[in-house]
This record gives sequence, C-alpha cells and structure tokens, in this order.
Amino acid sequence: DVVPTSERYAVRRLPFARLGERDVAFFERLLPGRALTAQEEVKPFNVDWLKSVRGCSQLVLKPQTTAEVSQVLRYCYEKNLAVNPQGGNTGLVGGGVPVFDEIILSTALMNQVISFDKVSGILVCQAGCVLERLNEYVEEQGFIMPLDLGAKGSCHIGGNVATNAGGLRLLRYGSLRGTVLGLEVVLADGSVLDCLTSLRKDNTGYDLKQLFIGSEGTLGVITAVSILCPQKPKAVNVAFLGCQSFAKVLETFTTCRAMLGEILSAYEFMDEKCMELVERHLKLSSPVADSPFYVLIETSGSNSSHDEEKLSNFLEQAMASGLVTDGTVATDDKKIKASRLRERITEALTHEGYVYKYDISLPVGKLYDLVDDMRARLGQSAKNVVGYGHLGDGNLHLNITAESYSHSLLDAIEPFVYEWTARCSGSISAEHGLGFKKKQFIQYSKPRGAVVLMQQFKAMLDPKGILNPYKTLPSAP
Amino acid sequence: DVVPTSERYAVRRLPFARLGERDVAFFERLLPGRALTAQEEVKPFNVDWLKSVRGCSQLVLKPQTTAEVSQVLRYCYEKNLAVNPQGGNTGLVGGGVPVFDEIILSTALMNQVISFDKVSGILVCQAGCVLERLNEYVEEQGFIMPLDLGAKGSCHIGGNVATNAGGLRLLRYGSLRGTVLGLEVVLADGSVLDCLTSLRKDNTGYDLKQLFIGSEGTLGVITAVSILCPQKPKAVNVAFLGCQSFAKVLETFTTCRAMLGEILSAYEFMDEKCMELVERHLKLSSPVADSPFYVLIETSGSNSSHDEEKLSNFLEQAMASGLVTDGTVATDDKKIKASRLRERITEALTHEGYVYKYDISLPVGKLYDLVDDMRARLGQSAKNVVGYGHLGDGNLHLNITAESYSHSLLDAIEPFVYEWTARCSGSISAEHGLGFKKKQFIQYSKPRGAVVLMQQFKAMLDPKGILNPYKTLPSAP
Repeated sequence: DVVPTSERYAVRRLPFARLGERDVAFFERLLPGRALTAQEEVKPFNVDWLKSVRGCSQLVLKPQTTAEVSQVLRYCYEKNLAVNPQGGNTGLVGGGVPVFDEIILSTALMNQVISFDKVSGILVCQAGCVLERLNEYVEEQGFIMPLDLGAKGSCHIGGNVATNAGGLRLLRYGSLRGTVLGLEVVLADGSVLDCLTSLRKDNTGYDLKQLFIGSEGTLGVITAVSILCPQKPKAVNVAFLGCQSFAKVLETFTTCRAMLGEILSAYEFMDEKCMELVERHLKLSSPVADSPFYVLIETSGSNSSHDEEKLSNFLEQAMASGLVTDGTVATDDKKIKASRLRERITEALTHEGYVYKYDISLPVGKLYDLVDDMRARLGQSAKNVVGYGHLGDGNLHLNITAESYSHSLLDAIEPFVYEWTARCSGSISAEHGLGFKKKQFIQYSKPRGAVVLMQQFKAMLDPKGILNPYKTLPSAP
Repeated sequence: DVVPTSERYAVRRLPFARLGERDVAFFERLLPGRALTAQEEVKPFNVDWLKSVRGCSQLVLKPQTTAEVSQVLRYCYEKNLAVNPQGGNTGLVGGGVPVFDEIILSTALMNQVISFDKVSGILVCQAGCVLERLNEYVEEQGFIMPLDLGAKGSCHIGGNVATNAGGLRLLRYGSLRGTVLGLEVVLADGSVLDCLTSLRKDNTGYDLKQLFIGSEGTLGVITAVSILCPQKPKAVNVAFLGCQSFAKVLETFTTCRAMLGEILSAYEFMDEKCMELVERHLKLSSPVADSPFYVLIETSGSNSSHDEEKLSNFLEQAMASGLVTDGTVATDDKKIKASRLRERITEALTHEGYVYKYDISLPVGKLYDLVDDMRARLGQSAKNVVGYGHLGDGNLHLNITAESYSHSLLDAIEPFVYEWTARCSGSISAEHGLGFKKKQFIQYSKPRGAVVLMQQFKAMLDPKGILNPYKTLPSAP
C-alpha cells in the first residue's frame, strides 16, 4: 500500500477543524447520495494516479452545480474545514489528493456542456467535463480542443485549467492563458466570481481569471470554463523519425520549423530507453529502425496535398542531409499507433516500479545535457534514467525509475536536478505544476519577492487557508 | 487649446503631496538632464495624441535603467507623490497622461534590446523600445513581432503590454497573454519584481506577470519585457474586397477561414464612410469599386505558391457565389497601400474634429447592428458615425465625429452604447483599455464582485494609490 504522505514527508497538520458528525449530516442533506463516506468509496480519491502520495480524507463531495459548490465552501469556510478540489485525479505532483483529512470536492458530476458557438468556436462548459469527451463533442461540429495530453481520457477541463496544462498542441495553439476566455470560480468564502465571458478580446480592468489558471485550486474552485476551440484541421499527418544524436534532433527541429512553418503542430522527442520501455511493457513496436533518438512530427492543415508536399520536401531534405537515418510518414492506422507510443511513455514507466518525475523547461540546446548528467551521476543506483518531451516548447520530461521509493536515491537526485535547472535559468516545473511534491523548490525558479507576493495573494483570497492547503506555495515563514 | 481634464470631467484631486523645490532638486540629481521642468518641454507629455484630455504635470522624468525607476518610485512612495507612467503616448482612453499634476515617468530612454535568441525567437528588451524598431530588429533575424498596430511607429512595447494591445495580428498569433513570456516590473514602493524569464512554459506558482498585462500602469511600472516572436512568414499576401452588405462580410469570413485555414493572418473590415474619410483627408484611393463594405484579408505562410493557390481558390469561390463584388490581390506595392488604408482610419478621423471613440467586443453576427442603431439614434447631431475593426476577433471600432466636443452629444451616445453592448454580453473595451475615459463604465462588462476584487488587488499592490491614479478602476465607494 502507498505510504501516507504525512509520514513519508513528515508534514505537520495545520489547525483546521476536524470533520464531525454534524458536518457530515449537513453535507448529506445538501448533496443527497453525493456525499461519500464509506471507506472503500473514498479510498481511490485519497491516492494519486502514480500511487506516490496518499491522504486520509473521510469525505468526498460531488456537487452538480455552482450553487452547490458555493454552499459547500461557505460552510467549510465558516467551520474552518480544509478542502481539496479534485478533477480527474491525473496530476503528477500530488496537487489533487489530500495530504491529511481535507474534504475532497470532486468535479466528477459537473460534466455538462453549457453552450457551443459554431461560428466562433467558443465552448462554455462545466469544470468536470472530461477532455476527450469535449474533444469528441466539438469535433462533430468541425472544431478541436486547443489542448491534448496523455491523460485526456480521464482528466477534467477544470483540472486542466487549474494546473495550466500544456500537452501536445501547445506548440501550435498556444497556452491556456490565451485560449481560455473566461472562468467561473467559487472563492474560499463561497462567493461566486463570474468571469465567464465568451469574448476573444476584453480589456475592462485586470484579467482576474489568469490568477486562477495554474493556481492548483489554492485560490478558488473553478466551476466553469469558456474556451476558444481552433477549427478542426482537414489534414493531419504524422512522421516518425530516427536520429543518431541529440544534436541532429535539434537541427531537424530548425529545418522542420522553417519548411513546415504554419502547419507544424507537434515536435516531440524520446530517447531509446523510452522506446525500450514502451516496447517491453505495452507491447508496442517502433515504426522505424533502432536509433538513439526518435522524433514525432505532427502537421495539421487545411489542404492535404499542400501539407503532404511540404512534409515530403522536408523529409527528403532531412534524409539527404543525414539529419535523419530512418523515417516513416504514417497512414491513418499507423498514425494512431505512432502517436500512442509517445503518449503512453508515462504509463510504461509506471510498470518499472517507483518513478521520480521531473518536468523541466530549459533552453532547447541544453535540454538533453541534464539527462546525460543525471545518468552519469546516478550510475547503478537508478534502474532507468530516461528523457522525452515537447522539444518545440523547450520542455523535458526527465524520469528516473527504481524498484521502490528510497530516500537516498531522492537525495542523489534532489536538489541536484533543481540546481542544474536554476543555473540555466530554467523552470523546475514546465507544465505539471508544483502541487505538494514540488512546492518547497519554487525558489529555484522564482525570486523571493515573487513568492512573497504569491503568498499575499493567497492570504487575500483565502485568509483561512482552507483551499488545497500544503500545496503550491511554501508555508509562510 | 485642449480643455483640462479636471475641468471637463469635474474630477477632484486626491490628497497627494504637491511637487516642491526639494523634490525637483532630488530628481535633477538622480537624473541629470533627464528631469524636464520647462513648460514647453513638459507640455506635449500632458496632452494625449487625440487631444482629448490634458493634465498639468510640471515634471517629466526620463530614467534609463530599472534601478533609476526603482529610485524614483521609492522616493515618490515615501513622499506620497502621484506618478503617471507614460510610453509612446498613443493611448486612446486617456490612460497615459496625467489628470492633475502627477509626475510623468516616461520610458522614452529605456530603449535597449537586452537579448534575442535566434533559435527560439525570444526577445528581451527594455519597456521603452518602439514597436516598429523592434519589428525591424527581429525581421533582420528572420522573425516578426507577434503584434502590429497603427501606432507602431511611436508606441512603446511596455505601453503595449501595460494596455494589453491587440491589433492586426491577434487573429493569427494570439494575445499578449500568450506571447509575453516574462516581465520586469517596479512596484509602487520601488521594489523590483523580476519575472523576466525566457521560457515558453513555466508552471511554478501563480503567473504574476498576467496581473500587470493590461493594468495600465496602475499596479506597477513595466521596465522590461520578454516576448516570443513568430518566424517571419516567407510569403505575405493581401486581398482587398468589396461586399454589398454586412451579411456578406460575415459569410465571406466563414468561407475564408475554412479555405485559408492556418495561413489567414488578418480579417479586417471597414464601411464606406471610413473609405470616404481616408480618401478625403489622406488622399489615398480605394483599390476596388465603391461598395458599402470593404474587407482586407492578409495571409502569411511558408510557401508562396501554396498560399497563392489557396487565396485564388478562395477568391474564385467568393466572386462566383456573389459574396464579393470586386476584389484585388495586392502586389507588393499595392499591398502596402491597401494595408495603410485600414491602418490610417484613426488618423483620418482626427481631421473631422472631435472624435468619440468606442472599441467594442460583440458576438460577430451583431457587430454592425450597433453602428446602424447609433446612426439612426444620432441623426443629424453627429457629423459621421463609422464602423470598422477586427472582424475575426469580434472587435468593432465605432467612431462618432462632430465639429467639437459637446456634452449633449455625449449624453446621446452614452450610456446608450454601453447598455447596448451589455445586453449582448459584449465588452465595452475590447483592446483600448479603460484608462481615464472609460473607467466609470466598467460595470457594464464586469460584475460587482470582480470590480471589488480588482480594487483589493490595487490596494494590496499600491496601498497609497500613487500609481496612475484616477485610471482603470472606479474610485472605491
């Protein structure tokens, strides 16, 4: 079983009230049949997807409406009960599960589409809608969601926004800071902040919604999202390539960006170790000959013959100049396989035992040096040290596996990995957030003045600190 | 001469300290030769570009470094002296000039590029760099600035960010909320907030910089900007079209978006009144036959023959189906002329006398109804009622001209225009901001709870209220 977080990390519980029978009775009246207290029902909400952290909440609440969320928070605020908002529970930094006995506020039943405008492509929906379901919904009307990630089958759009999820399409459609047009948020005291506009442009005052994007549920609970969906591309092509060195991966990127231009929608890389694990644990096979590095390129465009011409011109040049030693352009069927390969690395890694996960932003040229340095440093003490990620965005996923969790291996990795990143002015969390597991390392990427300001915002918006405590920010000194 | 703002709008001066001789002496020591006090030198900084508002500041400061800005603000904060940050003074809502005697802090001498990365396209520069100069600079290295607007020849990038400027390229490259990667900001008390990272992705804590984007200098003074520049397109084409009705303008947009897809970089429209004024005052001539509406389409792509094929296919269909009655695809020379026509409407309007300017976001389908309704309402009391704007972004520029300013005409326009907009859930300021002239109308686009929260942010970051007072937010009750 997973070791309780409070034990493994020796955290001290903050002086929130403890859940009493009268509290449970209140919630059962408010949410009949939607206030879970049976231990076996509550258990899966207490453990993260990676099985790396575990809380001991005794209550899961499943509101269906914003008004219900408001009533829950108003009550918790009055009674000083801590609350852990939870979406699809697919987070990787322990931000979505309780540390102690926080009440779990699940968005699972807030899964209704509110409106979709076919002219503008603007979708308004509740926070608990599953990303993949939304994508299917808008695809039927000729659009796609502006983000796509491995966890799409279970992650909630509210959780995506709360963690400012990145994913595979960021290179093309930009971050949620641009595509999210409006939010509805319930604040700590239960008041509802309505910034749920559906306008592409609105410069009336400060853009409050931005503060909640990426705040991991520590400043408010996102209950609805308005988001701009791009048109569904008429043609999507995938190329899978083998490269002999990371330098060639980089040079291939520069060439590809110049030749594919506006149709380039993803440029992902993985090393041979990743391929080995995906082949071993998921029985998938590489579409190209064995190589030290693999590149997945996706194009999305409005004219298939133009796109194919651009892609084949690029491939011809990449092969002729020796940047790429083997490559395949995927047909529809293979296409899906090749993309899955990349998407399922996270899953393959979990079969290896305990996974130490790092999600780093670095200047593109230095991206793989960190993997090499870490591999040399850890030697035999780690089972695997692998690197893959969104090269086009300067985002490395560094993963280290071992049979089981050990303090000594962790000490060999941290703070080395953070110091290395800070020396290159990188970010110690590109897209996963800080959650519980990374919050004490924020100073490697943010100056003290910025952290103090964040703490002031937290204190202003949630003066009792009941929203997702122990997460995102280091405790105030 | 321009009527002083304090008279025209009957504003009351807040109890800030008044500038004394010892203050001036301090600033002259701190910024030798860069603290302007001579009346004729200070005068142009007191009046906005539209000559619609006028302050009576007696001091203009021109720091060159962040450290100097910090020292200025620390002093002003201690002495309770109000400060008006000013960029290129091209704002349209009176946000950039003082209302009373606020000290003007000009970024004019903060015009150095700090770094440019040719691989990633990330530019870091001081806040006072002129947009057009920056564009020239990055163009030499194969990139472009992600924003473009009529005032580019004099506006400062810091002012662009402070007002969250939109402009012509937003449709393609998204808003500054996505393209600005980092900011350096000096806070009211003189402390420096360093969020000047150059990373595409960074999820370590709350995204503080977002609060300063679009805050019009009321929360801090932006001193440096890190911004992601897109690759310079290899091919740019411009089409200028005539349409017989606004319905056809809309239908042309839907067709165009589907057929041009990823290469569409601007879709602008103007009505025949605009064309008349541009022809009359600027001696430019229309490239197509007289029509009730004109459309400017720009494409930017990586392959000129592909782009030309897409554009000519689109034009063929648009003409054949009667959406467009006359059209021309511009050669290099004409191209420039055609774009200038659209860019210079603002300038042409100023030749008409006093201009009442409205910058509205609306659902695209209703965009021109507001112009029709306003024209009917005002009848002979206005000289001109014209509409143009960024149709692709749902952004209408509604302009009403008269020989000179009159209270009664203003009363006929406002609050009618705001009520109309609020009924459609639009924004009363799509891209210009609220500044001085629109701040009291914020409630037409934002609920009370949001405004209260904004006021709390302001009070937290600038407890004495010295930064750009009388702007953006209505005074606290």
